[in-house]
Amino acid sequence: MSLTIKLHVTTSHSHSHRLNHLTKFTSYSPNIRSKSIYHSDPLVSIVYNTKPRMHSPSQPVVHQAPAIKSSLIEPDGGELVNLVVPESERASRVSEAQALPKVSLNKIDLEWVHVISEGWASPLKGFMREDEYLQSLHFNSLRTKDGSVVNMSLPIVLAIDDETKERIGSSTNVGLVGPNRDLIAILRSIEIYKHNKEERIARTWGTTVSGLPYVEETITNAGNWLIGGDLEVLEPIKYNDGLDHYRLSPQQLREEFDSRKADAVFAFQLRNPVHNGHALLMNDTRRSLIEMGYKNPILLLHPLGGFTKVDDVPLDVRMEQHSKVLEDGILDPKTTIVAIFPSPMHYAGPTEVQWHAKARINAGANFYIVGRDPAGMGHPTENRDLYDPDHGKKVLSMAPGLEKLNILPFRVAAYDTVHKKMAFFDPSRANKNEFLFISGTKMRNYAKTGENPPEGFMSSGGWKVLVNYYQSLQTEEY
Amino acid sequence: MSLTIKLHVTTSHSHSHRLNHLTKFTSYSPNIRSKSIYHSDPLVSIVYNTKPRMHSPSQPVVHQAPAIKSSLIEPDGGELVNLVVPESERASRVSEAQALPKVSLNKIDLEWVHVISEGWASPLKGFMREDEYLQSLHFNSLRTKDGSVVNMSLPIVLAIDDETKERIGSSTNVGLVGPNRDLIAILRSIEIYKHNKEERIARTWGTTVSGLPYVEETITNAGNWLIGGDLEVLEPIKYNDGLDHYRLSPQQLREEFDSRKADAVFAFQLRNPVHNGHALLMNDTRRSLIEMGYKNPILLLHPLGGFTKVDDVPLDVRMEQHSKVLEDGILDPKTTIVAIFPSPMHYAGPTEVQWHAKARINAGANFYIVGRDPAGMGHPTENRDLYDPDHGKKVLSMAPGLEKLNILPFRVAAYDTVHKKMAFFDPSRANKNEFLFISGTKMRNYAKTGENPPEGFMSSGGWKVLVNYYQSLQTEEY
Repeated sequence: MSLTIKLHVTTSHSHSHRLNHLTKFTSYSPNIRSKSIYHSDPLVSIVYNTKPRMHSPSQPVVHQAPAIKSSLIEPDGGELVNLVVPESERASRVSEAQALPKVSLNKIDLEWVHVISEGWASPLKGFMREDEYLQSLHFNSLRTKDGSVVNMSLPIVLAIDDETKERIGSSTNVGLVGPNRDLIAILRSIEIYKHNKEERIARTWGTTVSGLPYVEETITNAGNWLIGGDLEVLEPIKYNDGLDHYRLSPQQLREEFDSRKADAVFAFQLRNPVHNGHALLMNDTRRSLIEMGYKNPILLLHPLGGFTKVDDVPLDVRMEQHSKVLEDGILDPKTTIVAIFPSPMHYAGPTEVQWHAKARINAGANFYIVGRDPAGMGHPTENRDLYDPDHGKKVLSMAPGLEKLNILPFRVAAYDTVHKKMAFFDPSRANKNEFLFISGTKMRNYAKTGENPPEGFMSSGGWKVLVNYYQSLQTEEY
Repeated sequence: MSLTIKLHVTTSHSHSHRLNHLTKFTSYSPNIRSKSIYHSDPLVSIVYNTKPRMHSPSQPVVHQAPAIKSSLIEPDGGELVNLVVPESERASRVSEAQALPKVSLNKIDLEWVHVISEGWASPLKGFMREDEYLQSLHFNSLRTKDGSVVNMSLPIVLAIDDETKERIGSSTNVGLVGPNRDLIAILRSIEIYKHNKEERIARTWGTTVSGLPYVEETITNAGNWLIGGDLEVLEPIKYNDGLDHYRLSPQQLREEFDSRKADAVFAFQLRNPVHNGHALLMNDTRRSLIEMGYKNPILLLHPLGGFTKVDDVPLDVRMEQHSKVLEDGILDPKTTIVAIFPSPMHYAGPTEVQWHAKARINAGANFYIVGRDPAGMGHPTENRDLYDPDHGKKVLSMAPGLEKLNILPFRVAAYDTVHKKMAFFDPSRANKNEFLFISGTKMRNYAKTGENPPEGFMSSGGWKVLVNYYQSLQTEEY
């Protein structure tokens, strides 16, 4: 594998601060299929190692811990944002919030509250005000107070309708209410500005074609106003779907990397099942990093956990599939951390891949693997990819604010029919039909019909999870 | 007038280099109406002062003069780009170009050749290759070799069709041929890449609605490929329309500012006739700059000279109108330079205003006046402005690479019916109907019907030019 490495590795090793966790959780059921096929939980031991990470409720908590500058790479803005109200102040904030005008959050809004509150979007401290929104839309970056630039390619905004705007009136703060009608957060020093949906969509997706999943789910019918402000979350966001233990915050991940004495962390963003081509790549990346002199590179296997389009494999199935891949030894649990990245998916290609990389800086990863057509999808109405498959890695390598991250573009893997395993595609052998590309569609068809994919395509345990899922889906359909 | 001034005034006063002008000109007729009403030429003395600026053909010329770091503000990239082949090498370049595969330029392409060759887009040295195109599209800026960032909000690209691409084959250089079939330039070390028109339009205009003038004129029917490379222009671009003497290059403007001993240059971009509200603003800006301590602020009255939409007033009429405004003493010729900015107009609002400002940095202006809805227009299909009228100045004030430019947002002027003159709009008097807003439509109607606008709206000489133009237009229509 040829690695293109930019040598800007931050090596400061100041100690990280212990996580201050709050233990009363709000309840949410995200978009999880009714019939769960999620049975085992083999990753808990991997994720949590042997040390308990949670404070008991009786322990004192400190609000907005001092700057975390741990480990391998500084968070954007120099300090990891943490917007959860300390327990000691919670009661008074709840009373305050109850008296405020209310704004309703849908499931995706709530995922963004989660993302912002844990500092994935550091230094962003709430839903964007107009100056942040415009910078994001036009420059894919924000200028901070000290004049430095951080990447911010997606507008992280909250839409409200005319009626809500009127109800807010001249109030400077509002309460945010979740899909289950419970109080989630306060948004302070609010600013309400116009939501020009057409412009937002055009500049974010580079198209206004109908059929963009995120747009249809949450923008098309949204209100004509955006409301920005400083966020204070009353309690940590939890989903109670059996997967919350995978939802490590950037602070928790940084601590985990420190406790494992990682000297390099390479993040792999995914929203699909892991096949052996992915595994080959991840293992090969680790080998390359060791060749470069790193002693203990750690893989952050980081599936996206928020909104995905209907034909993507649901999160619970993916988590079970990933766990089987580790059980089967395809990836090494000792050098792998599996955790959920709580962001919703935009399918905005070169614009979104910057967000995926930037958030992993905040989580402490100093290497980021980028593949063909990251965050891409098929064009909704034309028979082509929505984005040029090469643009993602090109844009990522040039993006403002990502200079400190080492970008690892990866070679394409395909099924090698001669050696009967996934291997890096070798163009010199392409004409001999020695490589088989197994698309998502082909994989789904294998799983639906019960036919086995070629030997060595995927760990057998992982494959069974997919077969179960797709066959349960067919049962539901008929 | 309230001026918001960012104090980053560069004050180095290294001597500018004398312009090296080439004297054999190619011939073009840009989009000029057949019946010219352009009669007088009173600005020549203003523009050229008393000193001749042209070298005679016998004088030796030096190619790519050393870095011009004259005056008040550094050109982007530190050096003003000049891509005109020195006369001594012209014959050999022409022979070379004749043997190369040819690419045809339309009128707008040729305007861009003009713009690039004179350094308005410094440090850009040719039509964009893909890495520049992607940075422009996604970040509105380019990172230079030394890591610094320059603004570049519009993709400056050249489209070719499949047939041309095939004809170019594996050639590394091509010849560029103008609309009149004459050889214009060589494009070297070319790169051909996909022209995704939908994405280009969406990211540049923030909409894909039909009816965008620049899009319909030059993108919709353009080829599916873009060709980038390093430009070498065989001779300076001239239009032979009686207005070439107004087309001062950035280098000529910098010399002019130096020769006038300007200690501040404030640029006013316009594509419309100058009324007394504009004049009030420009005079008031000068007064404010003097109050700030500047001794000799010079106004660069800088009408855009390239492509404009059909219902805009044509360039020759505007130049005559501007000259009358100076003749009538509404603006002071001693402290004003009138010149043509050769760029075509995108009507891309907040994205384009950055280009308008950036190009003026290269021309040596260190102050830039920005108004309501700069580079904006009505939405082609909805009854609203295409852009939020406030976004232009907001985006401009935050744009990467424009930090060194002083942005002067201006207050709106309207006709004060009490004092019978254009005045800054005073909201406290708004309810009493003491201000009259005279829109472009209203102004056109006055001119067409021969009715006079309110006294003090525009210099009488300037007004007559417009009446003549609109009435000649009606004559043509019937």
